[in-house]
Amino acid sequence: MTALSGLAVDRSDVVWVAAAIADDDKAVAAEHGGQAFTAERDGGNFRVRFVENDPEAHHRFYAIIANPILWFIQHYLWDLSNAPDIGHHEKDAFVHGYVAVNEQFADAVAEEVERLGHDAVVMTHDYHFYLLPAMVRQRCPGVLLQHFIHIPWPQPDAWRVLPTEMRSMILEGALGNDLIAFHTERSARNFLLTCQELLDLEVSFRNMCVQIDGRRVAVRWYPISIDVADFERLAMSETVRANEEELKTRRRERLIVRVDRTDLSKNILRGFKAYDVLLHEHPELHGEVTFLAHLQPSRQDVPEYVEYVEQIKRLVADINLKHGTTEWQPIDLQLDDDFLQALAAYKQFDVLLVNSIYDGMNLVAKEGVLVNERNGVLVLSENTGVHDELGAFALDVNPFDVSDQAEKLYAALTMPPEEKRARRDQCVAVVRENDLTKWLDHQLEDIAKLDPNTPPDRG
Amino acid sequence: MTALSGLAVDRSDVVWVAAAIADDDKAVAAEHGGQAFTAERDGGNFRVRFVENDPEAHHRFYAIIANPILWFIQHYLWDLSNAPDIGHHEKDAFVHGYVAVNEQFADAVAEEVERLGHDAVVMTHDYHFYLLPAMVRQRCPGVLLQHFIHIPWPQPDAWRVLPTEMRSMILEGALGNDLIAFHTERSARNFLLTCQELLDLEVSFRNMCVQIDGRRVAVRWYPISIDVADFERLAMSETVRANEEELKTRRRERLIVRVDRTDLSKNILRGFKAYDVLLHEHPELHGEVTFLAHLQPSRQDVPEYVEYVEQIKRLVADINLKHGTTEWQPIDLQLDDDFLQALAAYKQFDVLLVNSIYDGMNLVAKEGVLVNERNGVLVLSENTGVHDELGAFALDVNPFDVSDQAEKLYAALTMPPEEKRARRDQCVAVVRENDLTKWLDHQLEDIAKLDPNTPPDRG
Repeated sequence: MTALSGLAVDRSDVVWVAAAIADDDKAVAAEHGGQAFTAERDGGNFRVRFVENDPEAHHRFYAIIANPILWFIQHYLWDLSNAPDIGHHEKDAFVHGYVAVNEQFADAVAEEVERLGHDAVVMTHDYHFYLLPAMVRQRCPGVLLQHFIHIPWPQPDAWRVLPTEMRSMILEGALGNDLIAFHTERSARNFLLTCQELLDLEVSFRNMCVQIDGRRVAVRWYPISIDVADFERLAMSETVRANEEELKTRRRERLIVRVDRTDLSKNILRGFKAYDVLLHEHPELHGEVTFLAHLQPSRQDVPEYVEYVEQIKRLVADINLKHGTTEWQPIDLQLDDDFLQALAAYKQFDVLLVNSIYDGMNLVAKEGVLVNERNGVLVLSENTGVHDELGAFALDVNPFDVSDQAEKLYAALTMPPEEKRARRDQCVAVVRENDLTKWLDHQLEDIAKLDPNTPPDRG
Repeated sequence: MTALSGLAVDRSDVVWVAAAIADDDKAVAAEHGGQAFTAERDGGNFRVRFVENDPEAHHRFYAIIANPILWFIQHYLWDLSNAPDIGHHEKDAFVHGYVAVNEQFADAVAEEVERLGHDAVVMTHDYHFYLLPAMVRQRCPGVLLQHFIHIPWPQPDAWRVLPTEMRSMILEGALGNDLIAFHTERSARNFLLTCQELLDLEVSFRNMCVQIDGRRVAVRWYPISIDVADFERLAMSETVRANEEELKTRRRERLIVRVDRTDLSKNILRGFKAYDVLLHEHPELHGEVTFLAHLQPSRQDVPEYVEYVEQIKRLVADINLKHGTTEWQPIDLQLDDDFLQALAAYKQFDVLLVNSIYDGMNLVAKEGVLVNERNGVLVLSENTGVHDELGAFALDVNPFDVSDQAEKLYAALTMPPEEKRARRDQCVAVVRENDLTKWLDHQLEDIAKLDPNTPPDRG
């Protein structure tokens, strides 16, 4: 939302189409008879159109198809000898959930397109709406469609867990776009491979495009960022300062931090196992170091996620019991959703651990290095999108290699101050340079190139 | 072994190099002072050279690296949010197990090459020996090296669970070959993708080759088969006939059969779940059908495999309890290693289920259709190598789609006799046409083309 707000503030010709999920969203939607209305946010005006889904359809769309099945496929999380079992339950959820919700949104988008004139640009976001672009193209052939996919696109075999019709519908739905955008070149290339292998379409890796039905779909990558000025302001707020003071009373000399949703892709267990190895191999660190983990419980309507939180709690208890004393708990586990606490941790870390199995971008890395005040070192998984930008200045880790992560944590904790400063300065320079405006401007430039009707100053 | 025996019988210029694992192998090896000797097999003479490994090195090579790690990678079996954890244990096993055993074999092969003259052809088999070709090339630059990989080659991301050095050693080891062979085009293409993506090598999908160190490595596919005449003879044996008579007393009107090692890649659980759905949706089949599963316990030195057998037993007990009666057990589970029993089942099935998650070839499908005497129908996973040859005449299934498998089992059980016969005849024609001689001849032709020193009548 933040990333795109620059595009929509005070523009009566831009309409946000969003799901009404919370009760107050639904109340506001009802108040406006399901039509678009003007709302205020961050001191500007937005046009918003809420779409209200049947709760059962929404549950199937969100908690059966999008979040477990698609998310797991795209992050390589399925334990294939055990799961998923695709059966009537999942097929019904696809038809009456995923397809139904995409159709409802397509109808709403088409209505807004008509209202704005038929040459509108439709920008769709993420894996919830793969079917929508083709549906909108059918309803409004004149529009220009762009889709940003914020999670990794895996290699073709990962999609083979879905029945042929389902995976074809998803791909053909997304190929309704004129431009498909990812955070990384790797995802963009994997998307082309998938079209080539699973739909037997003609693709060009040189021009990064797919041919379908006589049209050409461009595939690009634009690494997303954060609003640097906004984020720095937030980091200086009173609450964050107070949280820092409180943190200083709890931490030891050296502080390892991680901040994540409790998502299986975040690789939280192996991070703690690496810390366990570190403490085992370096008894001199006992009592000297704290690993502060701010973990926000996530998707607790999906059984795998409930189990994951339990696994995390058990592992933390084991490690604290094994290495801790009455004076010192090696891991400080904060299972909460208090971002201003996490921000205090960002400012105070000596090491920030981002060891995701796979991650579309990972903004924690960018946020953390930006506001940190101790020349802290980033330990970064080679399978994150942000690795393309910050990998050269971070300590790289293979997310499956626990001993590698233990070694890099040790190297980060014992790095000479001048090297720490140099690495951190380079990271910050990249984050400032590749800011959010650049992310959005590059997309709008490419959209303008695709659309002969778009005036050159658009956006 | 059977597949290659034609090449080695009564040829003093061919030497088999093999591990001495059983005690009698070791005794024979010792008897010949670790040198090659002539052995008898199937009425012919073979030259054999046994390599005896240190048991600890062999365990690390086989039960830590090859069978769990490489097998799981190549069949997409890792449950990545939980396993594997690569640590000192695995890295030590790689260096002191996998590398060490490959080196020991490379030394033995190099000695035999010297004895035979330096222009020998070295043919290596499978995922246990990825490092050997580069080692042999270094020791004997004049040889021509071919490697047959019998399991699927996955897409590049699957290899990312290994540390960069380990995955690079594996790839560069295999690229020591002149020719790398798979059962399917899919695996061959994935191998090229892997070289391109993980080693940044120049590859050609048109010519199916990789450029490395100024050399060109050819990548090809040759679907393996069975010895048709031998197999048919075996199927007519007295023991098989007696087993058939016994089976007839146990089976019901319609017989579903599967024959597999208890390997996670075989998808045994989803096969039974599909049968559970079938029985739930078709109560008219109760008492009419038996699902006979001949499962050979496999790799019980790997914990995941022990657990898998337990899962299978529990699921079978659940389904038999749920649908069975005192008169009728829906699933007849045979956990044994009696191939002549399995052969009787091949001859008697109405439906043969081969639903592997991924499978390099799967010879059960070829063996089963060849000797079956009831015009039985093959229900076949789209992710098996054999699907390229028999897919058009089988009923296709997506291995993750349990309801699809239930539907195809039903369709197979209720198919009109003339369609069953037509499909079965077409399957048998393919198996007879693509026989083992063809598999080997095609390889030898390609090897001859690569080697200017090879006389045209070689092989």
